[in-house]
Amino acid sequence: MLTDWPLDTLRDYRPARTEPDDFDDFWAATTGEAAAAAWPARLEPYDAGLATVEVYDVTFAGHAGQPVRGWLLLPRHRSGPLPCVVEYIGYGSGRGLPHDWLFWSAAGYAHLVMDTRGQGAAGSLTGDTPDPDPSGAPQANGFLTRGVTDPARYYYRRVFSDAVRAVETARLIPQVDPTRIVVAGGSQGGGIALAAAGLLDGLAGVLADVPFLCHFRRAVDVTDAGPYGELGSYLQTRRDEVDQVFHTLGYFDGLNFAARITAPVLVSVALMDRICPPSTVFAAYHHCSSADKDIVVWPYNGHEGGAAFQRVEQLRWLGKRVPVGASGTS
Amino acid sequence: MLTDWPLDTLRDYRPARTEPDDFDDFWAATTGEAAAAAWPARLEPYDAGLATVEVYDVTFAGHAGQPVRGWLLLPRHRSGPLPCVVEYIGYGSGRGLPHDWLFWSAAGYAHLVMDTRGQGAAGSLTGDTPDPDPSGAPQANGFLTRGVTDPARYYYRRVFSDAVRAVETARLIPQVDPTRIVVAGGSQGGGIALAAAGLLDGLAGVLADVPFLCHFRRAVDVTDAGPYGELGSYLQTRRDEVDQVFHTLGYFDGLNFAARITAPVLVSVALMDRICPPSTVFAAYHHCSSADKDIVVWPYNGHEGGAAFQRVEQLRWLGKRVPVGASGTS
Amino acid sequence: MLTDWPLDTLRDYRPARTEPDDFDDFWAATTGEAAAAAWPARLEPYDAGLATVEVYDVTFAGHAGQPVRGWLLLPRHRSGPLPCVVEYIGYGSGRGLPHDWLFWSAAGYAHLVMDTRGQGAAGSLTGDTPDPDPSGAPQANGFLTRGVTDPARYYYRRVFSDAVRAVETARLIPQVDPTRIVVAGGSQGGGIALAAAGLLDGLAGVLADVPFLCHFRRAVDVTDAGPYGELGSYLQTRRDEVDQVFHTLGYFDGLNFAARITAPVLVSVALMDRICPPSTVFAAYHHCSSADKDIVVWPYNGHEGGAAFQRVEQLRWLGKRVPVGASGTS
Amino acid sequence: MLTDWPLDTLRDYRPARTEPDDFDDFWAATTGEAAAAAWPARLEPYDAGLATVEVYDVTFAGHAGQPVRGWLLLPRHRSGPLPCVVEYIGYGSGRGLPHDWLFWSAAGYAHLVMDTRGQGAAGSLTGDTPDPDPSGAPQANGFLTRGVTDPARYYYRRVFSDAVRAVETARLIPQVDPTRIVVAGGSQGGGIALAAAGLLDGLAGVLADVPFLCHFRRAVDVTDAGPYGELGSYLQTRRDEVDQVFHTLGYFDGLNFAARITAPVLVSVALMDRICPPSTVFAAYHHCSSADKDIVVWPYNGHEGGAAFQRVEQLRWLGKRVPVGASGTS
Amino acid sequence: MLTDWPLDTLRDYRPARTEPDDFDDFWAATTGEAAAAAWPARLEPYDAGLATVEVYDVTFAGHAGQPVRGWLLLPRHRSGPLPCVVEYIGYGSGRGLPHDWLFWSAAGYAHLVMDTRGQGAAGSLTGDTPDPDPSGAPQANGFLTRGVTDPARYYYRRVFSDAVRAVETARLIPQVDPTRIVVAGGSQGGGIALAAAGLLDGLAGVLADVPFLCHFRRAVDVTDAGPYGELGSYLQTRRDEVDQVFHTLGYFDGLNFAARITAPVLVSVALMDRICPPSTVFAAYHHCSSADKDIVVWPYNGHEGGAAFQRVEQLRWLGKRVPVGASGTS
Amino acid sequence: MLTDWPLDTLRDYRPARTEPDDFDDFWAATTGEAAAAAWPARLEPYDAGLATVEVYDVTFAGHAGQPVRGWLLLPRHRSGPLPCVVEYIGYGSGRGLPHDWLFWSAAGYAHLVMDTRGQGAAGSLTGDTPDPDPSGAPQANGFLTRGVTDPARYYYRRVFSDAVRAVETARLIPQVDPTRIVVAGGSQGGGIALAAAGLLDGLAGVLADVPFLCHFRRAVDVTDAGPYGELGSYLQTRRDEVDQVFHTLGYFDGLNFAARITAPVLVSVALMDRICPPSTVFAAYHHCSSADKDIVVWPYNGHEGGAAFQRVEQLRWLGKRVPVGASGTS
Repeated sequence: MLTDWPLDTLRDYRPARTEPDDFDDFWAATTGEAAAAAWPARLEPYDAGLATVEVYDVTFAGHAGQPVRGWLLLPRHRSGPLPCVVEYIGYGSGRGLPHDWLFWSAAGYAHLVMDTRGQGAAGSLTGDTPDPDPSGAPQANGFLTRGVTDPARYYYRRVFSDAVRAVETARLIPQVDPTRIVVAGGSQGGGIALAAAGLLDGLAGVLADVPFLCHFRRAVDVTDAGPYGELGSYLQTRRDEVDQVFHTLGYFDGLNFAARITAPVLVSVALMDRICPPSTVFAAYHHCSSADKDIVVWPYNGHEGGAAFQRVEQLRWLGKRVPVGASGTS
Repeated sequence: MLTDWPLDTLRDYRPARTEPDDFDDFWAATTGEAAAAAWPARLEPYDAGLATVEVYDVTFAGHAGQPVRGWLLLPRHRSGPLPCVVEYIGYGSGRGLPHDWLFWSAAGYAHLVMDTRGQGAAGSLTGDTPDPDPSGAPQANGFLTRGVTDPARYYYRRVFSDAVRAVETARLIPQVDPTRIVVAGGSQGGGIALAAAGLLDGLAGVLADVPFLCHFRRAVDVTDAGPYGELGSYLQTRRDEVDQVFHTLGYFDGLNFAARITAPVLVSVALMDRICPPSTVFAAYHHCSSADKDIVVWPYNGHEGGAAFQRVEQLRWLGKRVPVGASGTS
Repeated sequence: MLTDWPLDTLRDYRPARTEPDDFDDFWAATTGEAAAAAWPARLEPYDAGLATVEVYDVTFAGHAGQPVRGWLLLPRHRSGPLPCVVEYIGYGSGRGLPHDWLFWSAAGYAHLVMDTRGQGAAGSLTGDTPDPDPSGAPQANGFLTRGVTDPARYYYRRVFSDAVRAVETARLIPQVDPTRIVVAGGSQGGGIALAAAGLLDGLAGVLADVPFLCHFRRAVDVTDAGPYGELGSYLQTRRDEVDQVFHTLGYFDGLNFAARITAPVLVSVALMDRICPPSTVFAAYHHCSSADKDIVVWPYNGHEGGAAFQRVEQLRWLGKRVPVGASGTS
Repeated sequence: MLTDWPLDTLRDYRPARTEPDDFDDFWAATTGEAAAAAWPARLEPYDAGLATVEVYDVTFAGHAGQPVRGWLLLPRHRSGPLPCVVEYIGYGSGRGLPHDWLFWSAAGYAHLVMDTRGQGAAGSLTGDTPDPDPSGAPQANGFLTRGVTDPARYYYRRVFSDAVRAVETARLIPQVDPTRIVVAGGSQGGGIALAAAGLLDGLAGVLADVPFLCHFRRAVDVTDAGPYGELGSYLQTRRDEVDQVFHTLGYFDGLNFAARITAPVLVSVALMDRICPPSTVFAAYHHCSSADKDIVVWPYNGHEGGAAFQRVEQLRWLGKRVPVGASGTS
Repeated sequence: MLTDWPLDTLRDYRPARTEPDDFDDFWAATTGEAAAAAWPARLEPYDAGLATVEVYDVTFAGHAGQPVRGWLLLPRHRSGPLPCVVEYIGYGSGRGLPHDWLFWSAAGYAHLVMDTRGQGAAGSLTGDTPDPDPSGAPQANGFLTRGVTDPARYYYRRVFSDAVRAVETARLIPQVDPTRIVVAGGSQGGGIALAAAGLLDGLAGVLADVPFLCHFRRAVDVTDAGPYGELGSYLQTRRDEVDQVFHTLGYFDGLNFAARITAPVLVSVALMDRICPPSTVFAAYHHCSSADKDIVVWPYNGHEGGAAFQRVEQLRWLGKRVPVGASGTS
Repeated sequence: MLTDWPLDTLRDYRPARTEPDDFDDFWAATTGEAAAAAWPARLEPYDAGLATVEVYDVTFAGHAGQPVRGWLLLPRHRSGPLPCVVEYIGYGSGRGLPHDWLFWSAAGYAHLVMDTRGQGAAGSLTGDTPDPDPSGAPQANGFLTRGVTDPARYYYRRVFSDAVRAVETARLIPQVDPTRIVVAGGSQGGGIALAAAGLLDGLAGVLADVPFLCHFRRAVDVTDAGPYGELGSYLQTRRDEVDQVFHTLGYFDGLNFAARITAPVLVSVALMDRICPPSTVFAAYHHCSSADKDIVVWPYNGHEGGAAFQRVEQLRWLGKRVPVGASGTS
């Protein structure tokens, strides 16, 4: 059943954005600090037992130079640098094992999967990246409220900073064509992709499926399921921090990143999604500044969205914008 | 939490089997009928947009010559015939799209995914194979009770017959080494793999994860979750058919197939599995006649079992018994 | 709590109907085919141990001449032909046992209960009628999506065709007055009754309680409970068949049958019904063409609707239109 | 799934009974008081719109002479006095409407349905009998703990006293053969039937389906579902009344009534019953003193037990012991 | 998530009230009858093992002179009469033990906690007051429908009458300043406080948190959780009593009491409250006649509302209106 | 219903303990490090608006000298130093507001409530103490798995170290008698109390209600509810860390602390507790070395245990061992 407004209403929904005055300064400082602390990524060959895929266990300098893990998967047979999909992961999971991520390399792309710091201990995929030095302030379950009273210490500041660094890391990988980087992800991964796309220039594409981390105020009014429910729990308990919390979240709202995106964007949304309600996704989509944007609507799906069907849409969409090219594989 | 006995008890659990006298005759007739009706498989190249994988849309003669669909995935770069994993699918899902099945070809194996007839309309993956001409007798939700009052018309007679035919189909595929066929699957797929392995000679290996379709009497006493719950619902309603139903199921119980397996077997089981309770899996494992058998126990997992970790176990286990070989890929 | 709009809104809800151009041809062909294949019904006396009721185990020619079972219950003491209630059954159940159906014969009516083909294996009542020769196409749990991609093979084509045949069978029963036939049922039974009433002339009345099978598009938007949820599951999985599915359902939507009903109609609806949302029922009611129609609203009930209280309403309503008559019993 | 021990263990389960020393005195005083206060029952013809059944709205003197309602249903065509089934009702429901109770009269028996005082406001059937002058002591939801600290004021003292009076009322109805009275009921009705049978001589039979009100101590240890859960809630809150409560319940435990039953008894039990766990039913059955007793086991059913199938068993069983007789109907 | 309208809509919600013509007469008679039957309260010192609090076990004449229990807690060190908070209790609980109620005496107020008759057997706190002589009419679980067909016998007539008597009792306690009485409570306690405040003159304040017992018609349309759900169950079953029930409830609706309140009022409401939906609370608040009224909105809370944060609000609010005073403690 | 073994079995349950060889060294180092880093506690008067209670907002040096907050509540009227209850808090909550903690001061004791670092953002009470510098390793929801792969970085190392420091802080508070310190808590608070009591000499008493953090291996086998379920989720995901996790937990298991306790101990346990299964509590109790120990069994309670009834038990028990004394208050 529908979990939010009907499609006609969603198509017209353009809420006002709330953005802190120093939004750009905040992020310039954050990404600048990360860039300053960066060190060369380590790519160690990893024996995943896979015949067609070359796998590297990647460690790169993330936020504030803190090490972040990832997997780099390359089609073993290739010629010349490849376009690269930098993928961010859904809530709760980590990078798992290389064979959890076979799609984009099979399609001929280089594929860099970024571990999400601190996650990967109660989802379907394990993670290998700690989130060192969080504030340790009282928090609800999960990660959405970790450090939420202070933009500088908020968890997603570090994650989004990692995400920018992941793209910059990809750009320096010899097997990757730095002019053809796509950011991608579903749910939390989609929210991170929007953030990265709002903070970075020169991306070749953005693939954001049923993105999380958008339009927090409406989200907690509309759902208590999934990670938005963690924010609800926090506000339920710490009644005196409501304004402070939403002030922090203003620096992290996908609507504000969307308004800065200029790369081509393909979003997907599901009308029966209780985890990331469609009004929050449409709000982000409508604020997206990209001249080349499209949204795929899955009317009868929940948070799984289009799943493999959406992969097909993405292959087609990317094929027109960021093709693997004749020289992509041999 | 544990959903069945503790591990020590499970390790000692060897229940008596109940087997109809004509079990072997029944299956000889079934597979003979299918073989007699067989026609050459059709392998049509399929453009899945994948650079490293060659994909064929397969249609082969299943039970009684009825067409069954599948995907054949081959590493695009290879030399010589490959060992082949014939995979059966979990309950409710169908063959989906080729990019749902990238693991075994990435590992260098030929991979034939058999669609499960009639399924794939309410799971995570769509299916493309009808189940023509079922008896249409009253049935509970799902497939477990379709035709369950008559062994000859029971749904899994057709499915298991398809499964045997899938192996025979694989043996005739030019790119496949017919002496190195492995049957594999999880949940329903694991139960089908056990059945196929009990009905076929000359298999190189059997990979059965948290298998379904074993030890029905105990299953319905221990759980009402998942597909075993459908059997419970049936017996709850049709109180006068209990004996008849269990008589039919005697022809389809994984315990009876296990007792006939001689190929190397790797089973996995999860102690917190409510869908396929571990006592039913251990019962099958303990009855397995194979001289080379092992079981991987996941003590803190539910029906997801070992997931990617189990894939690693399988790669290692197969690597010793059915290696891709130096010539497997180029 | 209310599960749909408030009553005022419901009273004004008159959505447009979507009807295939060949709707009438489709059904004329279907019922014509059934009539052509018909053979004389078999009525075998059945010893149900009941003193006041004469019971017959009925087998009649249903869709395409396929045998359909039913119970005929007659008050043992009677004089002359009786008006007859032809009753269709709720989802999941079959005809059960004769003593599950004592109301209408106790009230002095002949009562023909039609088994629903394929059902009766996981509800409260068992069934005895197979649904031979379905397409076997992949389907979700239950019956609502059995063959849903093809109007000609869709499950409810056979059921509605059976339903018409049941009335025609009743008209030929010697103890029945063929001019005083009423069709009746609750939930699925109500939906079937509306269909039969839309396809048949000369009925003396229609009793449809909380009818199912009406206004499918809204139903799946409003609820995921009960059988409409099966349709939702199907569309969730088979994302590329949405248009095809709703095209098929256009031939089976209660709104389209209601628009053809001319017999007197008594509908009931419950405002807290999550299984058959009241907007779908009001939509059917408002499209009903009958000059003599009424709707009973149960404001605080769920899918149970008026239950025994609705029986009283029906007895009164029928008493004015299809009385048993002085000669009905002796 | 099983909700209690497996059948083998249940078959051997014979727990000790706990019975207050003055059990018989307590009940002799109770029934004596009721008998002393009795006044002639009122039987008012009731127009239920039923052709084959003669219905009376009964008001009889129950506990302490308080009025209790009921329905008397008689087959309209009969000759001579009939054997009579006195039926008690399941928890939460009242006597409803006459057409809710058509089975026994259709089978040729007189049928007296006793309303359960105070109940019938949140179940499927309404009730018409107040429970005047309860102690009003704090109680959990429902009726199981109404007055539970004092045997003299406990709710079921009044109900069981009503139940005895219902049989005595039936014995004086002219159309009833007073030597052929059967008490019957399911769930709470079954528990009341056991109590009435333990308190009355000369009954022709006892039909108790999945009886409630047996072996309270085990019940609250085994289940928190249904009405036993109300007792659990009470003990959870009023921690200092545990002994007092179980002392009271000693006067009302079906085990103690069963030990006094001498009439023929047919019990049914369901092994997947969470409401009335099978160990509590077997405990009562094993303590039953009747020389002619039997138990029907429904291995795959929950609290619905055998439903219509159990009715068939009961018709057969009664047919041998309390037949309607050739003269029963005309 | 929001369980009712958004705040803007709630702020504007002023539904019409439905009030019986003899509302004032009804309550004048009720309170007059109670006053006439009153006898002097008994205050027995109670050893709760508390050093700073003097505790009395109170028994006062409630409705119709029936004894009602309570606790009186006084700060042990005090000088002169104290302002007194008369507190009513949430649904299901009773007065519990004195150390369950330490807040107001610690704040320097005298504190009289009134037991709720009949309750305290399945909540978190036990109760000690029976509800003698209810009508015993069929009722749903709980207390909301006890006697609901008759205003004179309805449960809350007795409870509200007790509540008025509790204030009158407090006014006669020597340690209490009769001019400074505040009524207070949360949920049911808040509803009782509104009723008491509508029936009594001269109160110094009213504290009603997330009050229950307001705007019944909307409540049952909006929620089926908690005690309003009991009313829904009743109406679901006893379909023919809907008008009668709402007529009774007209005498007990918080909206009608609110319209008579002149004392200062502080209400609190929670926007995610499923038990007492905010529209029902705002409706009462908007009808409140008090010139000095305020409402505290907890936007992210459920039925727990502001909890300890609301206590702080109340201390501040009372501090300005009913201060303990310099002489309050020594 | 029972959630674990019956009481007889529990009474006999004495599982082997698993203790790392360097358990004592580990804790000596931990507490030594904390002692070395300690600085004088700050006690700031706090205006909680309470007349009878003197409140201080406490900040003391916890683990590694990190600041930990707490409330000190003292009866305002007292003479001489008081015995002091040091209380630890249940899972998820923080110290809340002073008026959440009125019991022990009302009983005449000094009362130091220790905030639990990092908690208090999604429970019923807010917290004010961050958990600075955790490892940030991937973790499941909540706190039970924070840093669980490394004893030195595990969350409860810091918490238990805080707990020892809280007692040492209390001993230096002028209004407290350092020879009469009692540690107390329920659930997590009970587990912390056992740990503190195992690490400290000279305590006057230990009050542990339904303690958490005991016998982890059994806990995850028996329950998936509450915080033990977080451990289950972790092990479910990070399958390769099972041994490492249980090795860490060996340093934190209440069984090992219990074996070191010599102070008088009063434990409580609830037989229907799904959160802290009774077998885990009895295991701790049976290993407790104290010569003066007792356990209160609440047979019909869940995790709420004895609640206010247990407070009464504690007052009595403490009254004999750590009385407030005649001079305790004036």
